[in-house]
Parts: sequence; structure tokens; C-alpha cells
Amino acid sequence: METFQRLESEVRGYCRSWPVVFDKAVGSHVYDENGKPYLDFFAGAGSLNYGHNNPELKKSLIDYLTDDRIVHSLDAYSVAKREFLKTFEEIILEPRGLDYKIQFPGPAGNNAVEAALKLARKYTGRQTIINFTNGFHGMTLGALAVTGNSMKRGGAGVPLDHVATMPFDNYLDGKTPDFLWLRSLLEDSGSGLDAPAAVIVESVQGEGGINVASAEWLRGLSELCKEYGILLILDDIQMGCGRTGRFFSFEEAGITPDIVTLSKSISGYGLPMALTLFKRELDVWEPGEHNGTFRGFNPAMVTGTETLRRYWTDDSFAEATLAKGAMVEARLSEIASEYGDFGAHVRGRGLARGLAFETEGIAKKVAAESFQRGLLLETSGPQDEVAKLLPPLTSTEEELNAGLDIMADAARAAVKVAQPA
Amino acid sequence: METFQRLESEVRGYCRSWPVVFDKAVGSHVYDENGKPYLDFFAGAGSLNYGHNNPELKKSLIDYLTDDRIVHSLDAYSVAKREFLKTFEEIILEPRGLDYKIQFPGPAGNNAVEAALKLARKYTGRQTIINFTNGFHGMTLGALAVTGNSMKRGGAGVPLDHVATMPFDNYLDGKTPDFLWLRSLLEDSGSGLDAPAAVIVESVQGEGGINVASAEWLRGLSELCKEYGILLILDDIQMGCGRTGRFFSFEEAGITPDIVTLSKSISGYGLPMALTLFKRELDVWEPGEHNGTFRGFNPAMVTGTETLRRYWTDDSFAEATLAKGAMVEARLSEIASEYGDFGAHVRGRGLARGLAFETEGIAKKVAAESFQRGLLLETSGPQDEVAKLLPPLTSTEEELNAGLDIMADAARAAVKVAQPA
Amino acid sequence: METFQRLESEVRGYCRSWPVVFDKAVGSHVYDENGKPYLDFFAGAGSLNYGHNNPELKKSLIDYLTDDRIVHSLDAYSVAKREFLKTFEEIILEPRGLDYKIQFPGPAGNNAVEAALKLARKYTGRQTIINFTNGFHGMTLGALAVTGNSMKRGGAGVPLDHVATMPFDNYLDGKTPDFLWLRSLLEDSGSGLDAPAAVIVESVQGEGGINVASAEWLRGLSELCKEYGILLILDDIQMGCGRTGRFFSFEEAGITPDIVTLSKSISGYGLPMALTLFKRELDVWEPGEHNGTFRGFNPAMVTGTETLRRYWTDDSFAEATLAKGAMVEARLSEIASEYGDFGAHVRGRGLARGLAFETEGIAKKVAAESFQRGLLLETSGPQDEVAKLLPPLTSTEEELNAGLDIMADAARAAVKVAQPA
Amino acid sequence: METFQRLESEVRGYCRSWPVVFDKAVGSHVYDENGKPYLDFFAGAGSLNYGHNNPELKKSLIDYLTDDRIVHSLDAYSVAKREFLKTFEEIILEPRGLDYKIQFPGPAGNNAVEAALKLARKYTGRQTIINFTNGFHGMTLGALAVTGNSMKRGGAGVPLDHVATMPFDNYLDGKTPDFLWLRSLLEDSGSGLDAPAAVIVESVQGEGGINVASAEWLRGLSELCKEYGILLILDDIQMGCGRTGRFFSFEEAGITPDIVTLSKSISGYGLPMALTLFKRELDVWEPGEHNGTFRGFNPAMVTGTETLRRYWTDDSFAEATLAKGAMVEARLSEIASEYGDFGAHVRGRGLARGLAFETEGIAKKVAAESFQRGLLLETSGPQDEVAKLLPPLTSTEEELNAGLDIMADAARAAVKVAQPA
Repeated sequence: METFQRLESEVRGYCRSWPVVFDKAVGSHVYDENGKPYLDFFAGAGSLNYGHNNPELKKSLIDYLTDDRIVHSLDAYSVAKREFLKTFEEIILEPRGLDYKIQFPGPAGNNAVEAALKLARKYTGRQTIINFTNGFHGMTLGALAVTGNSMKRGGAGVPLDHVATMPFDNYLDGKTPDFLWLRSLLEDSGSGLDAPAAVIVESVQGEGGINVASAEWLRGLSELCKEYGILLILDDIQMGCGRTGRFFSFEEAGITPDIVTLSKSISGYGLPMALTLFKRELDVWEPGEHNGTFRGFNPAMVTGTETLRRYWTDDSFAEATLAKGAMVEARLSEIASEYGDFGAHVRGRGLARGLAFETEGIAKKVAAESFQRGLLLETSGPQDEVAKLLPPLTSTEEELNAGLDIMADAARAAVKVAQPA
Repeated sequence: METFQRLESEVRGYCRSWPVVFDKAVGSHVYDENGKPYLDFFAGAGSLNYGHNNPELKKSLIDYLTDDRIVHSLDAYSVAKREFLKTFEEIILEPRGLDYKIQFPGPAGNNAVEAALKLARKYTGRQTIINFTNGFHGMTLGALAVTGNSMKRGGAGVPLDHVATMPFDNYLDGKTPDFLWLRSLLEDSGSGLDAPAAVIVESVQGEGGINVASAEWLRGLSELCKEYGILLILDDIQMGCGRTGRFFSFEEAGITPDIVTLSKSISGYGLPMALTLFKRELDVWEPGEHNGTFRGFNPAMVTGTETLRRYWTDDSFAEATLAKGAMVEARLSEIASEYGDFGAHVRGRGLARGLAFETEGIAKKVAAESFQRGLLLETSGPQDEVAKLLPPLTSTEEELNAGLDIMADAARAAVKVAQPA
Repeated sequence: METFQRLESEVRGYCRSWPVVFDKAVGSHVYDENGKPYLDFFAGAGSLNYGHNNPELKKSLIDYLTDDRIVHSLDAYSVAKREFLKTFEEIILEPRGLDYKIQFPGPAGNNAVEAALKLARKYTGRQTIINFTNGFHGMTLGALAVTGNSMKRGGAGVPLDHVATMPFDNYLDGKTPDFLWLRSLLEDSGSGLDAPAAVIVESVQGEGGINVASAEWLRGLSELCKEYGILLILDDIQMGCGRTGRFFSFEEAGITPDIVTLSKSISGYGLPMALTLFKRELDVWEPGEHNGTFRGFNPAMVTGTETLRRYWTDDSFAEATLAKGAMVEARLSEIASEYGDFGAHVRGRGLARGLAFETEGIAKKVAAESFQRGLLLETSGPQDEVAKLLPPLTSTEEELNAGLDIMADAARAAVKVAQPA
Repeated sequence: METFQRLESEVRGYCRSWPVVFDKAVGSHVYDENGKPYLDFFAGAGSLNYGHNNPELKKSLIDYLTDDRIVHSLDAYSVAKREFLKTFEEIILEPRGLDYKIQFPGPAGNNAVEAALKLARKYTGRQTIINFTNGFHGMTLGALAVTGNSMKRGGAGVPLDHVATMPFDNYLDGKTPDFLWLRSLLEDSGSGLDAPAAVIVESVQGEGGINVASAEWLRGLSELCKEYGILLILDDIQMGCGRTGRFFSFEEAGITPDIVTLSKSISGYGLPMALTLFKRELDVWEPGEHNGTFRGFNPAMVTGTETLRRYWTDDSFAEATLAKGAMVEARLSEIASEYGDFGAHVRGRGLARGLAFETEGIAKKVAAESFQRGLLLETSGPQDEVAKLLPPLTSTEEELNAGLDIMADAARAAVKVAQPA
């Protein structure tokens, strides 16, 4: 561990919560270098929806590599890319009636966001992007500007401009009608809001604290955007690929965003990959106007294709996720009900869940106690007030229950030393 | 190919120059889906310095995957990361007397650049970054602001601020002393140049047209930075990892940058990976102040470790590159000498070489004719005036000669229809 | 008139509503070049609170000029400036318990605003300014950034940054608690609101439509600012100097802003002059850090001193304004009551009053019909929905009634051709 | 003087160099409150080209005021404005073949600059403005962004963007061809210079240190602008109105700027006034798109009209200025020749002159010693290295010689305690 301290930047983070050295990983478990197993309710921050080293994806990956198929091809054409495009069209786009063009904007989620913002600005000729309180979209300068977290914003070292922030669903505790503020600004030529190019929103804010936008709110937003000629960018990097049940998190609301970003679990194996999808008429890019070296990482497309074929040809996987999600919610609610004094409550959709505590510090302690008991669990929210559950969607009911048992114990231990809110 | 046209965004680029579908790749060759081989003088835009599917790297990668070692671990500790850090310290940093901390800023070069810019601004409390004409540093908003290319800048859709551009070495054709302009601005409190946080520079500008900064110029820049308390960021994403001979492109000049960015060939296998290195005292990051999902892509660290062990424990690989580079330069000079009427001349260092033509359109034709003859060759420079050679460093002399033979033919064909400059 | 059309820029505005050439002006009347009188309910957009060519101010001005006293002295010391400073201290600051330093930032209101914004940013080391919907603060780039009007913002030609807009009092029609949104943003480290340097606000928005902030709302804002270490800038350029009754418009609310801007009627004679006042501890300016040629226009200080001595040594002038204001409000309410179908209602405080019509176009017609009948009246508000009354404070009751008679007639004529809302 | 210290902001500047209280002023002399005369080589920073309280202008001003003519009319039409426009057309524009539209952008020079920058950006749809080292254009945020002085820029508290700085004439001591850098940036699509809306330049930089642009350089700049579709803004606020001989400082070079800013001496009496002139086809303003209260300050137009009639109907005034300027230059050269060890040399054109010393601190001392001897003299340049002479153009030869005698004495005293450079 001394090696890391000596050589790795102070910016490192997760390792501080989990001071062990991981080595192996299978399905819902990670193992440290001494072979100690950890049940994983973190799943690579949502990048491992199909579990670690999923055997069927693994086979396709190793076959591809073994056969000396091309690994890195930038945006030249490759057989693996064609396979991915066709499969994505057949299994994902067509059945949902989505006529999207697909851009490979680079390997990371922030590349997908940066491309989305650029395209929205180029297409509309406008500059302002509307974002939402506690949104999280990435660390590069364009993506950071639409991200709410003040510590991370402070890292920019320059002002983060061209953005107007609006309240996310229920941010004002129901004390004001939805979109009253945004609609007033849009209607009023004296409001100071320059005409927006786009809105960028998450269906469920993962980093922001597992805040769920209701289907009704999302529909309202979509309609407002249409009314004022504003593009709707749905950032589905963390909540897409089945995390909330359906492949896209916005399907439940029945809306069609103008632009969608995907990353994290799109390759399904933890291989870096990202997509920016957009309506055909928005495809005003010049050739090469946005580029980047690792756009064409074929192994990620190979495993990505495999995830689609294995999990998304029918509704069964989505249904299973919803069922597991309901089960998790029920058990979390039980736990929360014991800690009303600490403002405990449950948040989330599908298998993106949070156990929130209004009393400061409790959620952080629950995560620490869980780690002691062999469970990997992150916190989120501006005050780290939420213990966040992102288990692999492939987790068995037994695994989920085992993790929830640990959480119940951990919560008990966490509140012992705390004072009620 | 119709699949790509129907589904992939118009932003796609390389595929327009090379309208075939690639499938396999070994060493210095890529094969299309019909098995037709192409000699590769492009090497994944410099990401494949050790060739495609290098067998020894491949073994380490497949072993790692086969054994269910952890693939994706964000910035938690892993055995593979520790191995990489230790090996990088032993083989790269220590022998060169470099006391750098290492940041894993995300999977792509632009993440390394964004982290470098943020850190420089945070450390100095200043905002302005000095960049150079025809510099190229990436497509995310922070990196794009320090990039010169006007078409790509135009894609931003917002102003690109906090940057002051200076002439790269020899930009003004020797008509003005080096750094006269920059030094005047720095000395003069009425110059309008706000105190700069950092300079960002490439030793050889790859995308900018294989423009070489002389060792003397780099030393002058380094000294000027010291004199005025400006951090020196050396972007070695394309020219590092041995492309110009030594591991870092700046070793020849004998300077020690404050911050170094690496990506492209750092994994050696085309796997997305990037590093930001900086002097120990600059490590003022807060934990998690810059993060990102694909920071912890272990397979890339595994192959990266293997490249260091195989190629960098002694000077032989660097020497071989320099020898091959000299050979390539000699043959290119021969070719250029035939086309003086078209302003042909040779640029570059090591195995980063360019055959430039002042007459517009010739270099583009040379690349197209080369492709017809089975050679992959990119152009670069603001007018695409340079046929750019980035062959794998592992290319044999025969392979290099074969490619150069094709280029000689291609040049002959290219000038046929052109008028002298 | 042809001279103006040939030579003066298309940017000219008021002359389009009042297509006559003015020549003379006395008290509450302006005369065109044919000697036709116009009753003035506009008063130089609030710059002529003491009437046109007020005889006592005129005497002091002509005496000063006749005696060859210094006219223009930049920020050198002058007898006239000393006289002004002492008088302002004695008559305005001391009786109100205000320990302000005084800056002469340039001749125009925008200079006062630009200085206020700079000082707030310098003092706090922060960049974001909070402004309010329909605020108006000037046309220079810094002042324009905190101004709401979209047409005027569009004239900037560059993005207007470093600003976050909040709802002015009653902007959301009472559907949301005061400051709920702003307080939520300030409390939440994930809100995306970077720590604000200052708030800039008008007590009554003149250009914005005679929107009145209640005393309670102003107090709430003041307290919120204190709680979060945000400076409160009260822009009293249009509403100060007695327009709403007391000398400062914020006296009624019992608050003490950190920074106050004054201009328009501060000289009392239409002579260009502006002041930025701020709490003693905020005076962190370096000598000459903000300068400008016409800071030291002594004749304006001379007439300004005279206004203080004539009108502000006791409460009688303020009381008279309040009484006249009440009378105007009563008569406007009568008029409004006839046009409920057109959404007519009355706004304002003191002698800043508005007759608003929800039906588009009516207010504009009222102003045009008034002009036909010899009354100068401006419209304001984002849709020009308010006929705005800013008569000289020295107007007699007869003059006010004469103007209101005209307005009553004009309203009758205006609605004739209109359809109810 | 205690009054000022107690009440006036620390930002006050000139009063620190001249710690007396001024009271009267006639012609080339200012008098303090004790009646002590000072010869004025400062002239209100160039606002009093026709001397203090010029009797003929004074008469027109007092007559106007006495007759209750309208003082303040915003941008309504007035007889005084029509008179000014017609006179300006007849005496200034027509004889010079200038087909300019005239905007009254507000009372101060910065208003003229802000309007010029806005219009250039609006007309071209571009954002970047090219400015020059040591340029000075004002303190409002737009004008400050194109100003070089680092102390004043620092006062902004926010980044000053959308500007690219180029070397003024001879800035690089003749070591590089004129416009080599700018032309290279414009020609090169990889230079990082976004297409500029306009260039803003002074013919002679007053605040910057009396740096003279040669006629040849100005012509070169004008041609370069035309070649690349860049608007040329000539800021003639300090050097116009005859300061360098002809009415406009650019006449000598034979160029026609696209936009010209005037202020300072345009009223001729120290009354706040400013103009933005531009080619007819650039007049794309919407009515009211740029406004401001003190645009319509009629007394300034009255005295301005009078200056044109008295001084500009033939060449005699310009010729006299040139003759006086030559005389001043000759005498300054004599003085400078004695102080070669201190790097003394003369700068300037017409009656804008500077006695520069390379040894730090000398010029500052010369100004201080001059004040002791009854001469008002400012310093300028980034290091205050220039004693700057801006005497009224109406100064007699005797007055000029008297001042120069004082300067000769002051220089002798100043160097006594200094060490040679």
C-alpha cells in the first residue's frame, strides 16, 4: 500500500474508503490480494451491470483477442463496429422506434457529454445549457460546467460558464409548481435567461444522491423543451443499460430525448466505451469535427454486442431487474423504518437505490461498517447523506439479501454513536 | 458499409480516406474483411508503438483476463495498478531522476490534459494557459481551448477562453528571435497578458504537421517558465513512449517539465489509458477532486507494465528507433529532393516523420495513392500539407523500406496531375 | 428632422416615440422648437427629480461657470468636490447613520455599477453576482451582464457570464415562498451555484416595469446576504434621490446595503454624475485601480450640493413626494378600475408609478395618445406593458392632475380599438 | 484635505501627486484655493484641448443655460443636437470625405468604446477583438478587456476574455517585420486565433507611454484588416480633436477606420460627451439596443459645436499645433540629450509628447519636481517611465516655453539623486 502512497496522486479517492488491494473479481464478488471476498453493491460505479468477468462476455472478448482481430481502429470501419451498430439498431433502437444516429465520441462518459453539448450548441447556434441541481456529468471542462458539485467545480480553476441551473424534480420539496421558474424565465424577455441550446438531465441522479425524476416531471420537461425549441439531452451514462429496469431509464416516461449519452455499462465488461445518440436531423457534424484516439476500441464493441444479444432480445432481463429492485426497496424501507429519528428514507428506481439519512455522517458510517462486514457500498449526495446501492443487475436474490443483511447490521452499528437529527 | 452510413454520425473521419472494413491486425499490418493486408504507417495515431496485437503483450493480457483478475476498479487499489506503478517508477522515473507523482485521470489523452490544466490553475491560482500555434491537445472543452485547429475549435459552440497563443519554434521562419514576443509580454506590466499558470507544448507537433521543437528552443522555454514562475506542461501523448527515440520526447533536450501527459501507447496494446505526471510538490489535489469512471482499467496497466519490461529496461529499443528514424529520414529526403518544385521537404524526429509539400493537395494525394498501393498513411498540418509517418516502432527495416517504396511511387503518381508551386 | 435621420445612428430611440425637436424646458414642462409645451412625466428618465432648469440650481451653476471655477479636474481635489462631500456627509449620511466611503466612478450610472461589481469581486475574491429578473443596470459589459432585457443582452455580441438570476419579489405570483430557491442553492454544496460575491437589486425596478420589492422582501434579502457573506448592492440610480419619498429608496425597509449606486438625479440638473457608496471596510481599492476621465465634473457637484441644501435638510420634501405619490396612485387606481377587462392595475411607490395593462399594446397606445395630448410618458416592462410615470418631484398638484387627466383621456382612446385580454 | 481622506475612496489617484485643492482655472492655468497658479501640461488628461474655461465656449454655454434651453434630453431630438450634427457633418466629416453615422453612446469614453465593440461583434457575428500591447480604452468590463495595464485588469475580478493582443508598432524594437505575427495567425487555420471581429488601436498611445504608430504601420494595419474582413476601430478619445495636429489623429496616415471613438475634448469645455462614428453600412443597431441616461447632454453639444466653428473651419489651428509640437519636440530633445546616461529620449506627435527615461523612477521625479515648480505634468507608460505633456492646444509659445523651462530644471533636480541606468 506504501507504493500507492508514494507514487499515486492525492487525488485518489475510493481507495481511502476501501484500504485493501483488489485482485480478482467474479460476478457479484471482488477479492482482495489475500483472497478475502467482498460482495459488490458498487459495480464499478454502474459500469458492471452484468457482473465482473461475466463468463459469456469473457468468452467473446478472449476469442476476439486470441484471433488477432483489430483492437484499436480509431474511426476507421471495422467488422466489430459494424456488428455492434447493427445489433444496437436491431435490438435497441428499432423496437423502441428510435431513429438515432450513433457517435463514438471517445472512451469515457465525459466524451459523450462533451460531444452532446457541442452538437446542441452547434445545431441551435445558442450557448446556454440548462442543467439541474445536483446533476453530475463529468470532469472535463464542458461537462464540469453542467455538474453541480462545488468541490469538483472548484477544481476547474476557471469560471464555468454558459449554464443556467434549475431545480431538479422535488428539489423545492413540493413548495412550488414544477417548471414554474423555468417557464417564467423562458416566457419573459426581461428574465435575463439567454435562449438555451439544450437541457441536460439524468432520470435518476446517481452521484447527486439517487434523486428520482418522476415520469410526469420528465414528460413535463420534454414538453417544455419542445415548446421553446430547446434540445433535451438525457444523460443515461449511469442509469442506462438497464440499471432502472428498461434499457434506457427514460422509457418508463415515454419520452424521446433529442440526444442521449451512454457509457459505463455499454461495453458490459468494464471496457472503456461511450456513445452519443441523437436524432437523425441533428447530425450536423463536419467529418472529424470532434475526434479522439480511443473512439475505436473494438473489444468494448464486441462485449457490448454480446450484452445486447444475451440480455436485451426480450423483456425478461428488465423484468427481473424491476422485481429485484422492488425487493431491495422493500427491505431498505424496513431498515429505514427503524431509523426515523435519523431521517432515514429510501430512494431510487430499479436497482439504483439509496438509503438516505438526514442526520449528517450516518450514511458514511453505514458504508464504512458495511465494508468491515465485506460489502462494497458507496455514498452519494452533496453531504454524502445516501448509502448508494448499485449491485450488478445479475446479482442473485440471495446475494442481494446477503448485502441487505450486512447493511441492516451496519446501520445498527452506525447509529449507535450518533445523535438523532 | 451501408450500415455505417445509415447509423454512424457524419463526424466519422478516417473511414472516409480508407473505405474498407478492417478485421484483423498483426504487427505492422492490418487486414480488411477480405483478408487484404495493409502496411500500417499510422499505428492507431501513435497508440500502437509496439505493433498490433504484439504477441508478448497479448499473452499477458489474455492471462489476466482468463484468470478473472479485476478489470475495472476505478481508483481503488489493485494488484495490477501496484505492479504498473512500481514498474514505471523503477524503469522510467528513477533512471531519469524524475520525482513525479502519478495521476490516472481517465482513459483518454484529453483526460490527462484536462487534469494537467486544472492542476496548474489550482496550484498557481492563475487562469491563463499559454499554448502554441498548431498545438493539438484534445476535444473536450478545456483541451480544445489550447488546441489551434480552427475547424475543431469552431465545434465548441462557445468561446474558448483563458488562453494566449504564442509562436511555436520556427513558426515565424527565423525572422524573429525565439521568445522575443513572449518575453516582452511577460516583462511588460502593460502588455495585457495576465500572469500565466502554465505553458502547454508538444516536443513535436503531430497533428500540427510534424513540427519539431529544437532542443535549444525547449530549453529556452523551460528557462523562461522558471524565470516567471510558469509551469511547463509537456504534452507527450503522441510523441512519448519512445516515438522520437527515448521514452519521453523531452529527454533529448535535457529538461524536466513540471507536468507531463501520456496516453496513446502507454498501454501499448491500444487499450485506453492515460497518465498525468507532475512534480511531487504540485500534488495539491483534494481526494476525488478530479475523478472519472474508467480511470482504473486494469488490463491496460497490465499490458503497459509488460511494455516497460520488454522494451525499456535498457537503451536498445530507443537506439533502434533512432537508427530506423535516420534511415527513414534519408529515404524521405531522397524522395523530397525529386519534388523541389512542389516545395517538398522532410520533417520529424525518430519515427515521427513527415513528407511535406508546399503545393496544396499533393500530400493528400500521396496518402490516397499510398492507400491504393496498400499503405495506411495519414496527413496532418493545417492544410493537410504533410504525409505523416507513424509506423510501429517494432517495424522491421524491410517493412519500413516497403512502405517507403510505396510512398515513392505514390508521390510520383500524386504530382503527375499537379502544377508546381 | 431629416438631419437626424441622415446622421444619427439607428440606435436612437425616444425620438421615435416623440418625433419633435425639443428646445427649451422649465420646471415640469418641455417645449419643442415651435414653442409647443409638453407636460413632462418622464423627467429625463428620472434624472430631473427637481424639474428642468430649476432656478436655484441654475443660479449656483451659472455663478460657478461665470467665476471661472474649475470645470474638469478628474480626481484631483477641488473646492467644489470638498463642498459636495461635506454636504453629502452632513445632510445624507450622518443623519441616516451611514458610514460610507464615496467613489466618483465616472459620469454615468453604468460607471457606478461597474465599480460596484468590481469592488464586490475584489473584496470577496468571488466572481458570481446574483441579479434579479427584469433588473436593469446599464449597457457596458459588466452592467449588461446583470441586466435582464434580452434585446439589450443580445447587443453584447459575447456571452454575459458570472451571473446567476433569481426571481424578483412576487415574480412567481406568490406561488413559492420568498428566497426558497436562492436559499436552497446557497445551502446545498451540490447546487452548482458558485459562492456569490454579491447580489445586485433595485428597490423598485424602473425599466423592468415599476416592479416594487416589498420592505419585507428587501429585509429578507439583506438577512440572507449577511447569513452567507454575500455583499448587497442596492442600485438606487433611478429610484434614489427621493424618487420613492426618502432620499434612498431602501430607507423604508430599514436595511443598510453594503454598496449603493447613485446617478441620474444626484446632480439634480441633468449634469452627468454618478457615485458608488460602500461601507468603509470595503474600500480595498488601489489608487487609480478604477479611473476615468469625467469622474471630476465639478459643475455637477455644485448643483448636487445645492439640491441637498435646498431639499434634504428636513423631511418636508420627502413627505410631499409621498403625499403626491398617494394622490397619483389614487387617481391611477380610478383609471385602472375602468379597464379591468384589459388587466389594468397600478404599480409603484412614491412618484415612481405605473399604469399596467395585461392586454398587449395598450400601454404603448396610452403613451402615444398622451403625447398627442401634450404629455411625455414612457412605457417600460419586458412587453412595454406599463405606462410609466416619473414626473419631477417638484411637480405641483395641478400639474400632476393635468397629466392624469390626459392619461385618463388617452386610456379611453387607447382601448377603443383594442380587444379585451 | 482631511475631508477627502475621510470620505473619498482610496481609489482616488491624481490628488496624491498634486496634494492641493484646485479652485479656478483659466486658459493654460489652474489655481489652487489659495490662489497659487499652476501651468497646466495635463489639460484634463486631454479633455481641455482649448484650455480651461475658454471664453468663447463659455459664452455659448452660459447663454444656453441662461435661456432655459433643454439640458438633458436622452436621445430625443433637440435643437442643440441638430446643430451639433449639422456642424460636425459640414466642418469635420464632409471635407474629409467621411460618410459616418454618429452614435451618442453615453457621456464617457468607455461608453464610446463599449458601443464600438458591441457593434463590431454584432455586425461581424464574431467575438474576438485584437488589441495592442499597452493600449488603453477604459475601465468598464468590455473596454477593460482590451486594455493592457495589468493593475487595472486585475481590478476586474473576473477573466477578461474574447481578446487577442498583438505588438504595437515598434514594440519588438524592430527585431521582427511589422504584422508578421498577426498575418501568420490570420493565414493559418491551425493558429488558434478565432476569426476577429475587429482591431482596436490608438494612433498614439497616451496612457501606454506616448507610443507613436507610424503612418506606414497604420496603413499596413488598415490594409491587413481589409484583406481579412476585420473592422478597424480607431480609438481617438485622447488623440483626436486636434491633439496631434489634424482633427483626427489618423488623417496623417490617410486611412479611413471603420469605427472611430471620440470623447474627452469633443465638448471642448470638460463637459462629459462621447461619440462613436462608423461607416454607414455598419449601422445595424436596433432602436434602443444600446442606451444610457446621459447620452443627451445638450450643453456639451453646444460647446462642442462652438469648438468646431471657432477652430476647425480651416487648417490654421492644426498648423499651429504642429508648429508648437515641433518646437516642444526640439526643446525636449535638447533636455533629453543631457540625460543619455538615464536613457532619456523624446516621443510623440503634435502636442502629445513624452520625455521618457529608461532609468526607473526618473520620470516620476521629474513630474514631482515640476509640480513643486508650478507645473502640472502626468507620467504614463507601464513603468511610469514617461513624463507626459498634453498642454492645451491653445497654449501660447511663451506658456509652452515656461513649462519646458520648469521641466529642464525639474529634470536636473530629478537626476541628482539617481544612478545612471
